[in-house]
Amino acid sequence: MQISLIATGKTNAKWIEEGIENYSKRMSRYGKFKYVETPNLKSKFSKADSKTVMKEEAVLQAKFLKGVDHLILLDERGKIYDSIEFSKHIEKLQVRGFRHVAFLIGGPYGFDPSIREQANATWALGPLTFPHHLIRIFAVEQIYRAQTLLKGEPYHHP
Amino acid sequence: MQISLIATGKTNAKWIEEGIENYSKRMSRYGKFKYVETPNLKSKFSKADSKTVMKEEAVLQAKFLKGVDHLILLDERGKIYDSIEFSKHIEKLQVRGFRHVAFLIGGPYGFDPSIREQANATWALGPLTFPHHLIRIFAVEQIYRAQTLLKGEPYHHP
Repeated sequence: MQISLIATGKTNAKWIEEGIENYSKRMSRYGKFKYVETPNLKSKFSKADSKTVMKEEAVLQAKFLKGVDHLILLDERGKIYDSIEFSKHIEKLQVRGFRHVAFLIGGPYGFDPSIREQANATWALGPLTFPHHLIRIFAVEQIYRAQTLLKGEPYHHP
Repeated sequence: MQISLIATGKTNAKWIEEGIENYSKRMSRYGKFKYVETPNLKSKFSKADSKTVMKEEAVLQAKFLKGVDHLILLDERGKIYDSIEFSKHIEKLQVRGFRHVAFLIGGPYGFDPSIREQANATWALGPLTFPHHLIRIFAVEQIYRAQTLLKGEPYHHP
């Protein structure tokens, strides 16, 4: 089963990039995992016009959703798991025969309705609010952790 | 009110260090915040002997707890807040007149009973399990976020 983590917009800090790389590299031993970022929007979209931003982001996100047969949005109001439950959920998706599961992290304003319509599920990391760039590290770490749990392998720190 | 975030052992990755620095630097405008790490234990403590490790860590942690009048342990089984509740909790501690609130992140095995006895409260970031080095970034980000919420200032990304 292919797992993708799709983030909206380029990472804006070197340390965040390295954090994501740290976990996505380790994932290569567990099969197909891919971390991708959508291109940044042109600056003509002002901060005030959040609906336009989300709509334009959706166009860029859609390009990465081709072939995805199970889409999970990272959403503050989504379902909350503990790490064991989350790994069991990934296992269940595998058993159900999905070929390409994608986790999608939105931009600062959230998701366009067109993306929400396509989504099969939502996932919240917990009750705390975090910047959407930082959430990338948490998500990739949990996907990595889920794989180590499913394989019964010791977790490698950090 | 002085706020300290005390982590057990040196950060073992440059990107984690930079992530922590990123938020702790921004905190300087809100008053007294300090991030500190206890020295690493000597290698003579083997991984198998987790009780000895925690006991020795407690000796090093204790040095940073002098003058702390409210100690909060970061603990998976601790109280869970959302970001607004967490900022209100910090405000409450300020109103109650504490002069030095410390958040303590333990080592990989957790806390020695002597530290648990000293603690006034426990805090869990959420139901997910994260590596104790990564938790440092989450904690410092939430403490920073709480300050911006209390001051009614816009949050600076990421």
